Amino acid sequence: MTPIITAFARSPDRGQGLARDMRVRWALEEVGQAYDTRLLSFDEMKQPAHLALHPFGQIPTYQEGDLALFESGAILLHVAQRHPGLLPEEANARARAIMWIFASLNTVEPPIAEWEQAAYLERDRPWHQARLPLLEKRIRDRLEQLSRPFGEADWLDGTFSAGDLLMVSVLRRPEGSGMLETFPNLRAYVARGKARPAYRRAFEAQRAVFTASQG
Amino acid sequence: MTPIITAFARSPDRGQGLARDMRVRWALEEVGQAYDTRLLSFDEMKQPAHLALHPFGQIPTYQEGDLALFESGAILLHVAQRHPGLLPEEANARARAIMWIFASLNTVEPPIAEWEQAAYLERDRPWHQARLPLLEKRIRDRLEQLSRPFGEADWLDGTFSAGDLLMVSVLRRPEGSGMLETFPNLRAYVARGKARPAYRRAFEAQRAVFTASQG
Repeated sequence: MTPIITAFARSPDRGQGLARDMRVRWALEEVGQAYDTRLLSFDEMKQPAHLALHPFGQIPTYQEGDLALFESGAILLHVAQRHPGLLPEEANARARAIMWIFASLNTVEPPIAEWEQAAYLERDRPWHQARLPLLEKRIRDRLEQLSRPFGEADWLDGTFSAGDLLMVSVLRRPEGSGMLETFPNLRAYVARGKARPAYRRAFEAQRAVFTASQG
Repeated sequence: MTPIITAFARSPDRGQGLARDMRVRWALEEVGQAYDTRLLSFDEMKQPAHLALHPFGQIPTYQEGDLALFESGAILLHVAQRHPGLLPEEANARARAIMWIFASLNTVEPPIAEWEQAAYLERDRPWHQARLPLLEKRIRDRLEQLSRPFGEADWLDGTFSAGDLLMVSVLRRPEGSGMLETFPNLRAYVARGKARPAYRRAFEAQRAVFTASQG
């Protein structure tokens, strides 16, 4: 059964692949699972039909037969557990790959998301400029903590896993701000992720949606 | 093999059970797995010996033979997958319980954590009072989105699961602020979680650590 995911009809990042459907698309491409996409306007995301699938009114969702999921991390883990390719077989390595999913989402991403959200929601508030150094320091501290033990490795823990897929996705968010660029090993890591054929296919698929919306 | 977790030698919440070791203790109590605790000072958390276990210098960690994990969500999921009692057996219900772990940590907790962090780090900044309504609105919006479909259920999806364990843990953080109290069904849900014998045992164990630290 072909799973169906939801995505923005018109992504606010204008097809840069930063919306969370990209993470699920990438995972499905890595494991070679075809999928269908249902596109939603911002208005549709807040309507009862979508809220029944996703109580927080966001994208992506994932439907596969009787199963309906939201939360990109949960969808990614579900895909990774059902198909070979995104989690090591050996039990301890598998637990560590899952640990990196959580570390990406719960430790590295939150300060990045707050910095983006402040730029979006508090840009015109009188305190925004004064707060920016605090927000940026939180991100730099996390990148520093990640960069040091990472060293010159290719991936977080041996071979590419779902943990890398999420960490690369998270680290893409501050690209171009100068913060990621301070850490050449992390910058190379992100480039390595983006060079994967499955990443490229997922990126093109989400970009095509945005391009079509501009038609 | 008895797992070993790390926890604060002197919890900053003074034994209220809001530190993240509580979530792991509670999970281990639910499945009946004994554990040992290694206590760390704030200084020890930043030393190389601990950073080798946890690159972000936090608690808890989890060690079990050759396996070392950090991230309370990952530890909880590992415990839940190894022992019966925290995840349904049926595949779709299991995927949904895992979805609620992610929803607790990635959708409901972030605005709560930001509000706490601002009170801690930005209390003396000139903008703090002016920003508070923004921070609180984000929390109320999430609680509203959670409360509406929850209705008069006992748990998020049928029987108690690891998803409930995390959601109750997250919802405990704004207790007493008046925000949780606006939603009687969520308040009752938190009370239901706290009444579980496993919760009580975990709570007493972490409180005993703090009490002992006060000598």
